[in-house]
Order: sequence, then C-alpha cells, then structure tokens
Amino acid sequence: MSKTIVLAYSGGLDTSVILRWLKLKGFGVIAYIADVGQEEEFDAARARAAKIGADEVVISDLREEFVTDYIFPSICGNAVYEGRYLLGTALARPLIAREQTRIASSRGAQFVSHGATGKGNDQVRFELTFAALAPELKIYAPWKDPEFLARFQGRRDMIEFAQEQQIDIPVTLEKSYSTDENLMHKSYESGMLEDPMAIADKSIFTVCKHPTEAPDEEELIELQFQNGLPISLHEQSTKNETTGALQIFTRLNDLGRKHGIGRVDIVENRFVGIKSRGIYETPAGTILHVAHRDIEGIAMDVEVQRLRDMFAPKLAQIIYNGFWFSPEMDFLMAAVKKSQELIDGVVVVSLYKGRAMAVGRSSPSSLYNQELSSMDVAGGFDQTDSVGFININALRLKAHQLIVQNASKGGAERL
Amino acid sequence: MSKTIVLAYSGGLDTSVILRWLKLKGFGVIAYIADVGQEEEFDAARARAAKIGADEVVISDLREEFVTDYIFPSICGNAVYEGRYLLGTALARPLIAREQTRIASSRGAQFVSHGATGKGNDQVRFELTFAALAPELKIYAPWKDPEFLARFQGRRDMIEFAQEQQIDIPVTLEKSYSTDENLMHKSYESGMLEDPMAIADKSIFTVCKHPTEAPDEEELIELQFQNGLPISLHEQSTKNETTGALQIFTRLNDLGRKHGIGRVDIVENRFVGIKSRGIYETPAGTILHVAHRDIEGIAMDVEVQRLRDMFAPKLAQIIYNGFWFSPEMDFLMAAVKKSQELIDGVVVVSLYKGRAMAVGRSSPSSLYNQELSSMDVAGGFDQTDSVGFININALRLKAHQLIVQNASKGGAERL
Amino acid sequence: MSKTIVLAYSGGLDTSVILRWLKLKGFGVIAYIADVGQEEEFDAARARAAKIGADEVVISDLREEFVTDYIFPSICGNAVYEGRYLLGTALARPLIAREQTRIASSRGAQFVSHGATGKGNDQVRFELTFAALAPELKIYAPWKDPEFLARFQGRRDMIEFAQEQQIDIPVTLEKSYSTDENLMHKSYESGMLEDPMAIADKSIFTVCKHPTEAPDEEELIELQFQNGLPISLHEQSTKNETTGALQIFTRLNDLGRKHGIGRVDIVENRFVGIKSRGIYETPAGTILHVAHRDIEGIAMDVEVQRLRDMFAPKLAQIIYNGFWFSPEMDFLMAAVKKSQELIDGVVVVSLYKGRAMAVGRSSPSSLYNQELSSMDVAGGFDQTDSVGFININALRLKAHQLIVQNASKGGAERL
Amino acid sequence: MSKTIVLAYSGGLDTSVILRWLKLKGFGVIAYIADVGQEEEFDAARARAAKIGADEVVISDLREEFVTDYIFPSICGNAVYEGRYLLGTALARPLIAREQTRIASSRGAQFVSHGATGKGNDQVRFELTFAALAPELKIYAPWKDPEFLARFQGRRDMIEFAQEQQIDIPVTLEKSYSTDENLMHKSYESGMLEDPMAIADKSIFTVCKHPTEAPDEEELIELQFQNGLPISLHEQSTKNETTGALQIFTRLNDLGRKHGIGRVDIVENRFVGIKSRGIYETPAGTILHVAHRDIEGIAMDVEVQRLRDMFAPKLAQIIYNGFWFSPEMDFLMAAVKKSQELIDGVVVVSLYKGRAMAVGRSSPSSLYNQELSSMDVAGGFDQTDSVGFININALRLKAHQLIVQNASKGGAERL
Repeated sequence: MSKTIVLAYSGGLDTSVILRWLKLKGFGVIAYIADVGQEEEFDAARARAAKIGADEVVISDLREEFVTDYIFPSICGNAVYEGRYLLGTALARPLIAREQTRIASSRGAQFVSHGATGKGNDQVRFELTFAALAPELKIYAPWKDPEFLARFQGRRDMIEFAQEQQIDIPVTLEKSYSTDENLMHKSYESGMLEDPMAIADKSIFTVCKHPTEAPDEEELIELQFQNGLPISLHEQSTKNETTGALQIFTRLNDLGRKHGIGRVDIVENRFVGIKSRGIYETPAGTILHVAHRDIEGIAMDVEVQRLRDMFAPKLAQIIYNGFWFSPEMDFLMAAVKKSQELIDGVVVVSLYKGRAMAVGRSSPSSLYNQELSSMDVAGGFDQTDSVGFININALRLKAHQLIVQNASKGGAERL
Repeated sequence: MSKTIVLAYSGGLDTSVILRWLKLKGFGVIAYIADVGQEEEFDAARARAAKIGADEVVISDLREEFVTDYIFPSICGNAVYEGRYLLGTALARPLIAREQTRIASSRGAQFVSHGATGKGNDQVRFELTFAALAPELKIYAPWKDPEFLARFQGRRDMIEFAQEQQIDIPVTLEKSYSTDENLMHKSYESGMLEDPMAIADKSIFTVCKHPTEAPDEEELIELQFQNGLPISLHEQSTKNETTGALQIFTRLNDLGRKHGIGRVDIVENRFVGIKSRGIYETPAGTILHVAHRDIEGIAMDVEVQRLRDMFAPKLAQIIYNGFWFSPEMDFLMAAVKKSQELIDGVVVVSLYKGRAMAVGRSSPSSLYNQELSSMDVAGGFDQTDSVGFININALRLKAHQLIVQNASKGGAERL
Repeated sequence: MSKTIVLAYSGGLDTSVILRWLKLKGFGVIAYIADVGQEEEFDAARARAAKIGADEVVISDLREEFVTDYIFPSICGNAVYEGRYLLGTALARPLIAREQTRIASSRGAQFVSHGATGKGNDQVRFELTFAALAPELKIYAPWKDPEFLARFQGRRDMIEFAQEQQIDIPVTLEKSYSTDENLMHKSYESGMLEDPMAIADKSIFTVCKHPTEAPDEEELIELQFQNGLPISLHEQSTKNETTGALQIFTRLNDLGRKHGIGRVDIVENRFVGIKSRGIYETPAGTILHVAHRDIEGIAMDVEVQRLRDMFAPKLAQIIYNGFWFSPEMDFLMAAVKKSQELIDGVVVVSLYKGRAMAVGRSSPSSLYNQELSSMDVAGGFDQTDSVGFININALRLKAHQLIVQNASKGGAERL
Repeated sequence: MSKTIVLAYSGGLDTSVILRWLKLKGFGVIAYIADVGQEEEFDAARARAAKIGADEVVISDLREEFVTDYIFPSICGNAVYEGRYLLGTALARPLIAREQTRIASSRGAQFVSHGATGKGNDQVRFELTFAALAPELKIYAPWKDPEFLARFQGRRDMIEFAQEQQIDIPVTLEKSYSTDENLMHKSYESGMLEDPMAIADKSIFTVCKHPTEAPDEEELIELQFQNGLPISLHEQSTKNETTGALQIFTRLNDLGRKHGIGRVDIVENRFVGIKSRGIYETPAGTILHVAHRDIEGIAMDVEVQRLRDMFAPKLAQIIYNGFWFSPEMDFLMAAVKKSQELIDGVVVVSLYKGRAMAVGRSSPSSLYNQELSSMDVAGGFDQTDSVGFININALRLKAHQLIVQNASKGGAERL
C-alpha cells in the first residue's frame, strides 16, 4: 500500500461516504470500529465496510478498558461538566482515538481520519489525542477539506453519492437528531432539538424507561467502594450480588434504565465557542456518581474535599475539551488518585422514577460524629473549645467592623 | 433595667429553660422570635415567653427580607454546600442574628444570647454575625457556660427544671431527631438519624409529599428571570401566574411539596471539625436552583461560568461557616452580582415524583448556536477555522510527547 | 473613499511597508499613531506616514488613560504574568486598539489593520479587542495574508520594497532584537535574545541604568494610597512631593530608571502555544507593584487576600492573552474593585541598585497587632482562646491518623 | 519515671525557665534540642539543660532531612506566603515536632511541651504536628496554662525566677526583638519592630551582608536541576563545583549572605487572626526559588503551570498554618511531585547587591520557540493557523457585544 489511512468507522452514512471518498482518493483504508458498548450490529458493519472497499476492517472491544481507565477515574475526580453532564462522549473519544493510533502504528499507516464535523467537540477530541500520542501521524478530516465540503453541502448530497456509488445503507432524508452511544451514555442533539425551548418528547429517550413508565416501587441497592472504586453491588430486593468493574457497571445500567435514571437536558458550551443543547441518558454513570459523592462525604477529609471540589470543574473542562492525554490531566489525576486512598465503605442508593438518591452509608474511614467519643485517647470534643475557636475566628470580623465604622466617620471618599 | 439581654427564642424547651435561667441570673430579658417562615404558633410562643418571665417579647417578620436578600443571592452564586446542601439554615441564621443586634441596639441591651449548642454550626453563625455587626455586644451562650452545662447534663434535667419552674411546655423525654425550619427548608438531624446507615423512614419527611405519594402526572412550570432573579412563575396546566419575590418563592414551595421535590440525605462537614448527617427538604430552593442553573447555561458567558463554578464551593463554605457578613463574602458577591447582569430568559421545569428537571429554555442573552448565523455581520462560524484552532491547541501536546520520548530514550531517572 | 482602513502605525519599517501595501491595494488609509508614552519623534512619524501616502494621520495621546484605566487596575488586581512579567505591552494593546475602533467609527472606516505577526501575542490582543468592541469591523492582518507572506519572506524583502517604493526609513539589515515601549515598560525579544541561554549584555537595557551604574546610596520614598490607588509620592531626601496619577507614575519612572529597578528576564508562554524569551524594564510599575502589595499586606483582610491571590494568575492570563474587554475581565474586576475599598495608608520603599523593597508602612485600615488591645471593647486577644482553636483544628488530623493506623493494621490494599 | 515529658529546648531564657518549671511540677524531663542549622553552641546548651535538671538531653541533627524533605519540596511547590515569605520557620517546625514525637515514642514519654506563646503561629505548628503524628500524646503548653501565665507576667518575672532558681543564663531585661534561625532563614519580630512603620536598621540583619556592603561585582552561578531538584552548583568566577543537597544549599547560603540576597520586610497574617510584622533573611532559599521558578518557566507545560500557580498560595497557607502533616498537604504534594517530572536543565543566576536574578537558562524539556522548527514532523507553526485560532476565540466576544448592544437598545433595567 502506498499511503494507508485508518478511518474511525461507525457504520453510518457519513463514515460510509468518507470510506468510499478515501478509496477514490487513492488511500489504502483500514476501517476501524470501536466497541465501547453501543448498540450496534458489528458483523453487519464489518460486512458493509468491506463491501464499500475497506482493505481491512478492525473491530476492537474496548469496553473493559473504557470502564476501568476512563469512566471510573472520571467518577473519582467528580468530573461533571457545567454542573450536569457526566461526559459520556468525551470519555470515550480519547480511548477510541488511542486505539486508532495503535492500529496505525501496527500497520505502518501514516494517516488517520474521522467523520466529525468542524463545528463540534469530537473533531477536537480525536485530533488532540492523535497529537498527544502520535504527533507523527497525518490527520485527514474531510469535514474541514474544502473539496469535500464543496461536494457535500447537505445530507441530500451524501445520500445521492451513496446511491451513485452503490453504497447500501438505510437512511432517511431528514434526521430528527444526532446521537452518540456507548456504555456510559446515549446523547441526542441537533435537528429538532436545536431549538433549546423545544421540549423533547418521550420518543427521544431510548435507553432508559421514561420515569412515568418506571416501576412504582422504590428499589434499594448497596454499592461497596474501596479506594474510591466500586468493588461490589448488592441488590436488596433480590439479594443479587455483582462484582467486577465491567459487570458492576453493566448491571447498574440495567437498573438505571429500568428506573429511568440519569436523564439530563442542558445547554452547554462547546470548546469551539458555540453553545449547544444536548440531551443525555447516563443511567449507570449517574448512580455511580451519586454513590461515590456520598461515600466521599463520609470518608474524605474536609480540606481535601474543598480543594478537589474547587478544581473538579476544571477537570471536567479538560476532559470535555479533549485534553485527556495532557500534562495538566496527569497533574490533576495524581492528586485525584491520592484523594481516593481510604475512600472505603458502603452506600445505599434508592432508585425511583428517575432519581438516584443516597439514603444510607457507612465507612471505616469516617471521622463521623458517633465515633468521636471512641477516639478519646486525646480528648474527643470539648464544647468549651468552641469559645476560643469562635473568638479567634471572630477577631478579624470585629476589627473589620471597627475599621469600617472609623472610615465612615472620617468621611473618606470610597470607591 | 440594669443589664438587658436579647434572647433568640424559639418557643421550645431549650430556649424556654434558658429564658428562665437568664431571669434567675438577674437579666432583663427580651425574648425575640424571628418569623422566617417556619410553622409556628407565634401567639402561643409570645404568651409562653411572657409567662416564663420575658420583660418584652418581639416577633419580627423577616420573610420577605429572607427571600430577597439571602435566598436569592445564594441561588445566584450557585452556593451548594458539599455538592448537595442548599444551606437553608445557614442562610437564615445571619438574618436572624442581625435582627437581634438591631433589637439590642434599639433597646440599649448590652447582651445577646442563643440556645445553640457548643458542637454545632449555629453557635458559630450567631456569634460571628454578632461579632461582625455589633462587636461591642457581649455574648452569653449558656451551652458553653460550665455552670449551665453542669446543671443540665441531659434532656431529662431540662424537663425536670421546666417542671420545677412551672414552665408549661409539651415535651417528651426522647426526641427522635432535631429539626430546624424556615421558608427555605426543614432539616432533621441527631437522634435516630445519628447512625448514617440508618435509613430515614417516611415519617421523617414532613414538609414534602414522599415521591411515592406525589402525583402520577408530570407538571410543567415556567420561571422567568431578569438579572438572575425570578420575576414571574407560570404554571402550564392551570395558567396560574405569580409575581413578587416572596409570592413566587411561596408558590414554588407549594408546588415542590406537592411533587416531593428537594429531599437530600447527606453526611456533611461541620465548621467545628465534626462530620454529621443531615436530612433536608428544600422544595422551592431546589426548583429555583435547577432553573437558575439552566438559565445560566444558556445566558452566561462560558469563561464567567468557569470562574464562578470554581469558587462556588468556597462561597457555600463561607455561608455554611457563618461568614455571611464578612469582607470575603462582600468580595465574592461583587463578582456574583456582576455575573448576573444579562441572565435573562425563561426556563421550563418539569416536576415529577421528587425530581425537578429543566426541559426547555430561551434567552435574549444567548450565544446560542441557532443565532450564530444571524451575527454574520463579521463572519459567523467557519468550519475551516477549526483547523488553525486545533493545530495551535495541539502544538504543546505534540511537543510534550516528543520531550517525553526523548527523555525516556535518554534514560534519565524520573521521579 | 470607497474602502477605508485604519492602520496602527508605528513609524518603523514594517508598518511603513504595510501602509504603502494598503495604498497599492486601493485602500484609503488612515495612519493612526498611539502615544502611550514611548520615546518617539511623533512629528517625524506623522510626516513619514503622509509621505508614504496616508490619507490622514491621527496621533492620539493616550497616556493619562493608560495610567488610570489600565496600569492602575492591573496593579490593584496584583496581575503578574507567570510570577514576574508586569504586562506592559499587554496593558497597552487593548487601549491602542480601542482608540483605533473609535477612529474607525468616527471616520466610517470598515477596516482596521495592524503590523503584528502571526506567531505573537499582539495580533491576538489587537483582534480580540476589535471583536469585543466593534464586531462589525473587518480586520486585515497582512502577516497572515498568504499574498503578503509570499512577497515578504524576510527583512531583506521589506528593505528592498522600501527602496523600490522610495520609502525613506533608516534601517539595518540585521536587527539585534525587537522592542516595544510605553510608559509602563520597554520589552526586548527575538534576534540575539532568541537563545534563552544567551545572557543579555548591558546594551540591551536602555531605559534603566544598569544596577552596577546606579547610585551607591539607598533612596527612600513614600507612596500614599487611597482605595488601592497611589495619591501622592514623597521623596524623603529632597522632600519633593508629587500628586496626580500620570505625574506620580512618570516620577516613579524617573526614580526607577535612576536606580535600575524593574529588570526581568523570563521565558514565558505565549497564547499561541509557543514559549518565548522576553526581557523587560518596568521601573515605575515595579515600584508601584511592590508598594501596593505591601499596603495590602497591612490593610487587606486575610480571606480577601487569599481569594484574590488565588485568581490573580488568572487575571494576568486574561490580560496577557488579550481578553481585557471580556465578560470574565468584568467579572474579576468587580471583585478587585471591591477588594480595594479601605486599602489606605503609606508605604516607605527603599530603592537601591536594582531592587525596590518595602521597609515601612502604616494604615488606618489595619487589623495590626498593636491596635488589637484598643479594640478591647469586646475582648482583644486571649491566649487561652488558642487552646480551643487548636483543639478544634487538630480534631480531624487526629481522626485521620487513627484511620490510617487502623487501615494499615487491617492490611487492606491501598492505591 | 512516673510521668515523662519531652521539651523542645532552645537553650534560651524561656525554655530554661520552663524546663525547671516542669521539674518542679514533678515531670521527668527530656530536653530535646533540634539542630536545623541555627548558630548555636550545642555543647553549652546541652550542659545548661543538664544543669537545670533535665533527666536526659537529646540533640538531633536534622539538617540533611530539613533540606531534602522540607525545603526542597516547598521550593518545588512554589510555596511563598502572601507573595513574599519563603516560610523558613514554618518549614522547620513540623520536622522539629516530628522528631520530638519520635523521641517521646522511643522513651515511652506521655507528654510533650514547647515554649511557644499563645498568640503566635509556632504553638499551632507544634501542636498540629503532635496531633497528626501522635494523637495519643498529651501536650503541656505552659504559655497557655493559667498558673504559668499568672506566675510569669513579663520578661522580668522570668529573669527573677532564673536568678532565684540559680539558672545561669546571660539575658538582658529588654529584648530589641525576637529571632528564629535555621538553615533556611533567620527571622526578626516583636520589640522595636512591632511598629510596622519603624524602619529596621542595619543591625537587625545579622545573617546577610547589607546590600550596600556587598561586593561591587556581579557574580554568576549556574544551578542544574533534575526533576525540579538542584543537583549541582557551578560558580562561574571560581569554577567551584558543588553537589549534594545539603552541600549545595549551604554553599548557596554562603553566596547569598555575601551578596545580601533574600531580605524581606512584611506585614503578614498569622493563623490566629492577628497581623504581625516579620523581617526575614533567606539567602539560599531565595536564590533557589528564583532559579527554580526560572527553570520551570522554560521546562514546564503552560497548563500545569497555571493550575499549580493557582493553588500555590494555598500550599503556602497550609505550610504556614502548621498543616504540613495533613491529608490536604499529601493531596497537593502528589500533584506537585507529578509537576516536577522533566523539570530539568540549567539556570544562570546573577547575584548582585541584594538581588538574585535569572539571566539565562536551557532545558532539554523545553517547548522553546527555537526548537519548534525541528519538530516539523507534523507541521511546526503555521502563521495562518492563527486566523482560525483567533476567530474562534473572538466568537463569544462578538456575540457578547451584540447582546449588550441589544440589551441597552431594549432599555431593560440592569443591576
């Protein structure tokens, strides 16, 4: 092969058109399909890629790695983008792109390609990962190639091209919205959702039961954590027990979907300076986030929590913007990892009609009130200590008040 | 009156005992009852205080001020303590204590007193407010007075004292838990809730309907904001319209209670270094927080949001710890106030079975995607701009990778 | 005029070439020269611009505005880029660019232009200011125009073009380095300074005396502040007194230059992802920064100082990157302005051989030790208060140690 | 021995009096002297302690540990308290106190004691370290013991007691100021320095030459760093070469003292809510800080630097307040350690008349401009990339301006 390109192939219209386009441009094309837990007919996608002309089709099962090396660390860092979004797509992209660089390296390919548009976040996440891990690779992003943009000005052009080129793919002219799916979440945007005031109807939520259709009974589960990571899941009603990272996460997805947990509707800030509206279903991620936050509440030192909470939005921003593989990510994660030592214990979570809520917890790492008496070695809590504590905290407030009084008496001009 | 003291009087056992104790100590006592929206028989409390021996009873209606000057600014600053607690008690204390200093000043009283214990947050909030606003006042806190502590070693002692002293107050020996209530929330702690693993039963939630008993129909409401403040509430099903700060907040409480919104169960860090478990019901506050966060999502500049989100936990900590009246609060609130300019628009919130969720929004202040085309004055969004944008963002990542590769080749020892 | 462009004209080779280039392209050109305090023969520059073909030459004296609205606020915000650089160029650019938009608006010009290259910070500062204040203006930046770049591949091409076009300007083929100068500083970069290991010789410092040539006597000056702003300067040796913002700043420049104050040699991070080496002379700015930091030390509340210090690097970054006119700048400056209330008093600064050092200060806003006794109204400082204060602070440390001991005894595996 | 106490003994009046006091109270006393590099006649101090009645005298040489485990990590974290103070005393206290707990543990002592007063920082640093490392130990702090305070109301009482008790110690009634000394610094406070406006005369600076008496020649030295730590020192004029942590630090002290480097005069915020004035001489620490900051400038990733700079003031506060051994310190230091990987290279520092200034540097970890061309593998820097980069950064500023214009046209009332 003279010049080889690895294309992140989804099986859909866009990347099918791109695959053929790359062939027409003379590339040897490796169609790469990442299995990150999405609903997908992988065999059909493989066959389609081959039929369109892929010289090789690679399907990589990344699910376990996704859960342990991407989802769990993000949960441990309390990474929530703009207060609500649990970063499902943003977490999968660097993993998908890293695997793509591995494939390129093992096949001696010089190029990588993806089907993300020039207005979104995913182009950035793909390309920054390529830059960070394989700066020697050349990137071909058709949606930023003027020739490609001139040829395909709308969905209609792509469908016509597919027909011309005898690419067999079931499509409709109008897409109601775009989606992205993996183990962590399913997202919906664009199309009829573009108007942020347009209320999404029930048909848009396809992963989880709509809360109104969820069971009428509250369900209690227990998640056990060690060093901030879930190590077992116990369902109170059935006594069902699950261990293993992927297994726990998958089971939490089942439970979350059943109870309609983890729906979010948000206008968010894309890295490229645009606000856009996204709707997400993140069942397991939401339950895990709720439980993890709660076990930290009882097991984490208050000052560590304060510092972590201050930079958690920054961590979410780094992930969202595609800097998973970056020095600043390594820097923050070193601290996050440290913070998770001793985050041990059990949380009871109630699942009911769209809401996961912690309702009980215990931890061997707790500074909890009850046990303070048992640490009486050197004293426990003496209420009269509060006198000195408050006096010293009050000192500067008193002084400030006296200064302000003096200043206003003096009549000095203020800002 | 030789020496006069203003006592924050609740009408309950503790402050009734303290009132009499103060009289026995020779104080002239002004019993001060703050109306911050709690369920209370104010006339009965007034009569009881007088009967116990208060020289004067003052009842101050602080509800409007509470909503406009404490609750709304906190919502605007996105102040959420440790990720979940909306600060209901912490917001009311500085207001209650400020009014107390006003009463002391107008009556020429030299002392103030409160019934908060030496292990909790409220003592701090009371006393820091006194220090900040009236440093000349002397504070008598019986729960830190060794003589008082020696006399009253348990609830039993207080009940006996009340009987001896013919203080007529309905009490039981065992309290299941402690509560605090105001317009913003009702809290529950201690007693049977002390064990953080003990799941609170339905009887503990007294303000809101339990979600399982809430209506089976989702309800949609619209909140309109101007400069970050709610200015009107529209209920879609009834077309009911509400304006006015206190009126909107009260109506949101009705709606939130009906749908079981705003329940939280959390282990939190008290200022005095103890972790404790609290359960809260915050119906209106939760709905307002959800809606305000959402209108900011569409109307607020991304960089302002990032900065605000970074110090929002600090703001919550300041409020929680009792530093409402402090230079650092003034400092942060100057920025918060600035951030709320142009936070205008409407949010549609769905209320259903314990969850409030934003489902639609519009804003004249939006940088929203849709309108970007109409700002084509100077260009709009050109997808090829992303090439340069990503290249420049990728530059340091590429360089970093090359450095790391060189360093590992060179074999230099790393940390 | 069919299409009119306002060019930020410096009088040097680059912008002279650009001016003619614009004329050749058919623009009506307004040559705009900003007086921000640089050493410049303004009449000569005016004449040169006219001779090259400017349709109008505008010289704006921006010095007073520069000091009061840009330099002083930056000093008040403690904005220091990467620990050392006081932002001299970054502070002047938004002012220069704002004036340029004013001129464009008053003349009905549709275009603005500047001579900054595509690799530096100044292009960003110019263009973001244009975008923020006059989004309707079109920007023509020749150093990013492929045609211009093809025509001028090096300094030699520009000199030849100037000769061809009979542009009379004294230049040499080799430039030792580039400079930028204004009231705040003079900068040096590129050329022989490009190698960060190359030590700059004395000839490079042209504004200040080299410290080895500065007076052998220490000189003491007193700066008086009100609300964080310098309102008078007293020189102890001469009793010389200066008031007025521009006058004080100019006099501080005289003093700083005499004593060799304010030299910095730094490798810094440009916004476009490149590190570069800069050398700066910032005499008055350095003295003012030192004095202002010191008056804050005595007059500012500790918690305000902590918060301000945490985001001061961010403020410097915003300014450095060209976001002076931005919502995030307004947001932070609202807090900064608040923080400067009551920052009143006098600082004595020693100037000697390259170093400015605060050696004495007093303030009516001080919480200073000495005066604590006089605030005994409500107590002053009782050493035994420290017992309770420390006990409560120690509580969680004790608990943490006990937890760690238990965990290691228990032998649980840790991260 | 029935009850044994380990006293941190300095050899001065206060701890000598305390030693005897403890004996009179019936304690078995272990006098413990920490050698952290202070000027001290250790043999004389040992003899004095024994003569006063110490049952055992222990002198621990902590110098190497001080440099490698306390000073260097603090420099790596860029910990500077309130912008100027390099934390000399604060860094030594936790080490001194930790050794004290080790001695107590090895001797089976149940008590520890120190001579720090109830108004200062050192009591906190001692006692928090005790709490963090040995919560089972009992602390006896005479300066907070009402009996001791009643007995010794001033320096005169202590001198009289010493005379009565035949404690032989050379003292004067009036102390001009207090000092603390170790390898890192010497501090001066109280006495005639209490008035913050009183300018310290030359006699107060005893470690370093006064700059006016320092050599008239600039001296250049080269510090080589690996992973953020100094590994060799080269003096250009003499070709003298030094390696080894303690050796480098000691030699930097010689050089700094000769050139009068590292003097600071500051009003700082004590942890107990008081502002106080401190004067410090920190020769080696200052040079090292300057050089380390500079090597980071060239070798550290910009985003890591930004994050680190944001929390560096917090790190300094943690150290200053005595929380060296705390979960939050571990948390931040995990990130700091990560940040120092690849901080390699050489810095040339000029020493002259009180100022240390970086004048040259090189690093194999640099993203420096010069080398960008050599990374052309995947492109280097293309100036036209700046167009897209700026356009995308400008997008939200343009939108904001349009929104503001609309809002003001619409005449809506703003905050």
